[in-house]
Amino acid sequence: VIAAIAGGVGAARLLRGMVRVVPTGQLTAIVNTADDTVFHGLHVSPDLDTVTYTVAEAIDPVRGWGLAGETWRAMEHLNRFAAFGATTWFNLGDADLATHLFRTDRLRQGATLTEVSADIAAAFTLPLHLLPMSNDPVATMVMTPEGELPFQEYFVGRHHDIDVSGVRFEGIETATPAPGVIDAIEQAETVVICPSNPIVSIGPVIGVTGVRESLTKRRDDVIAVSPIIGGAALKGPADRMLRGLGLESSALGVARWYADFVGTLVIDTIDAALADGVRALGLRCIVTDTIMTTPERAAELSATILNAHA
Amino acid sequence: VIAAIAGGVGAARLLRGMVRVVPTGQLTAIVNTADDTVFHGLHVSPDLDTVTYTVAEAIDPVRGWGLAGETWRAMEHLNRFAAFGATTWFNLGDADLATHLFRTDRLRQGATLTEVSADIAAAFTLPLHLLPMSNDPVATMVMTPEGELPFQEYFVGRHHDIDVSGVRFEGIETATPAPGVIDAIEQAETVVICPSNPIVSIGPVIGVTGVRESLTKRRDDVIAVSPIIGGAALKGPADRMLRGLGLESSALGVARWYADFVGTLVIDTIDAALADGVRALGLRCIVTDTIMTTPERAAELSATILNAHA
Repeated sequence: VIAAIAGGVGAARLLRGMVRVVPTGQLTAIVNTADDTVFHGLHVSPDLDTVTYTVAEAIDPVRGWGLAGETWRAMEHLNRFAAFGATTWFNLGDADLATHLFRTDRLRQGATLTEVSADIAAAFTLPLHLLPMSNDPVATMVMTPEGELPFQEYFVGRHHDIDVSGVRFEGIETATPAPGVIDAIEQAETVVICPSNPIVSIGPVIGVTGVRESLTKRRDDVIAVSPIIGGAALKGPADRMLRGLGLESSALGVARWYADFVGTLVIDTIDAALADGVRALGLRCIVTDTIMTTPERAAELSATILNAHA
Repeated sequence: VIAAIAGGVGAARLLRGMVRVVPTGQLTAIVNTADDTVFHGLHVSPDLDTVTYTVAEAIDPVRGWGLAGETWRAMEHLNRFAAFGATTWFNLGDADLATHLFRTDRLRQGATLTEVSADIAAAFTLPLHLLPMSNDPVATMVMTPEGELPFQEYFVGRHHDIDVSGVRFEGIETATPAPGVIDAIEQAETVVICPSNPIVSIGPVIGVTGVRESLTKRRDDVIAVSPIIGGAALKGPADRMLRGLGLESSALGVARWYADFVGTLVIDTIDAALADGVRALGLRCIVTDTIMTTPERAAELSATILNAHA
């Protein structure tokens, strides 16, 4: 069995490939929930939904988030209230709203996020186990020159076009891992850290009580895929964030960040020259094509990762 | 200035006519909120919205609720979760969702229902003041042979196709009138009780602390329109409810129910024979056409009501 630690888009693309090479039910994705937030009273879980929609082949291929064939009637009509304090900078499509309505309804009735996520995964007939990192609320807060911002205000509201000098995860000290998280890590033959933002996507999962420790114990079986290719993130602000926190925006910077709990780093062929540096840090290094332009390429990358370890 | 006490569809139709004969800003509608409920985490105010959409000429003319030209994408996609406990019996259209998202968002931020309702009225440029009866939660509970049901489960979930032996308004004892409610009643030249269900639409408004007393003091200036025509309700279960509670389902039954605080009852020409009975109860009685097939007919009825009192 395989465990994967996941953020949003990059992780979702790898997982869409991984379900093609791992038998149904043998893969558990442990997903960041520190981006979760409440919009208009609805509980929104961006990373869980990006994984769900992508693995279900329901994601919008152009936007990279939300559902394909989406309509925006609710948001269009919300503009009627723009002058009266409506939150109009965070778009939720009409079909996507159904997921948030269902999640919110169930949570209000007392279900845990673990239970709701499992039901959403089942409703989309995902061939993997979908686990939130924690059922406790954790909120990523981003320090910028304009003050501290909640993650979605930074990421969506400000289009992550602002410097980041610090990040903290509110609630992380008391957040306990969701049921199944530690077991999945302990029982996996291989733990894959997906190519997501190391700071704000992988960081919170690692920060949940006990996760870093269980990974460290399994270090030889933990394989991470660098989300930094040629010094830049394919999508999102990971590169700027690494630099903002005084780290190197390169596969080598990722290796340093992960060195304590990752035994193997997968880097892109474009970064082949960095392999020796990664190895000098005490990690094994696999150099391969990591850009997942198609689900088939993602499946090939998955096979490379899993074969490397087997 | 005019005050109107309102439930849903019948009230909304009268108010759509009344704004044609009352100058802008001179009419205050005090609306039942005991049907309000939370669906999928969203605060839904059916009567407030029916009044808003109808007066704004945005109501769906066929269904009689919700917005014209509505789409149902969110609800269609919610069906994906039907096997996992999704609430699928209460339909919220995509455009209508915007109203509930806005209301829920604002309430979460600490606004009162009074403030949000005023903003929604302004966003729809209504020419009247829209007041909820109270900012305190009140919940209509309906006693049926199958036990007590929350109002919307009875009304929408069961299509009000079940006997009612009792009604109670949870929270009514401690509900205080929303700001402006008592003032509107005290300062109005005429208080109109709209043709809504006397038990579950008008009943809760009357039940809010102080409302019945202020109406009783103004009894001579209070004019009600009977929602029962020829022994039946045009829409909804008012007739069956009156009988279920041991009352007569007729304009005369309505007169008895309202006698303490209503000075004049408007009944339909079809019920002309009941006029003497109404008068024998100590009410004035106006006999006229009360079926509001068009906004013009509603305006004529409004003029009749207001001229009768002037």
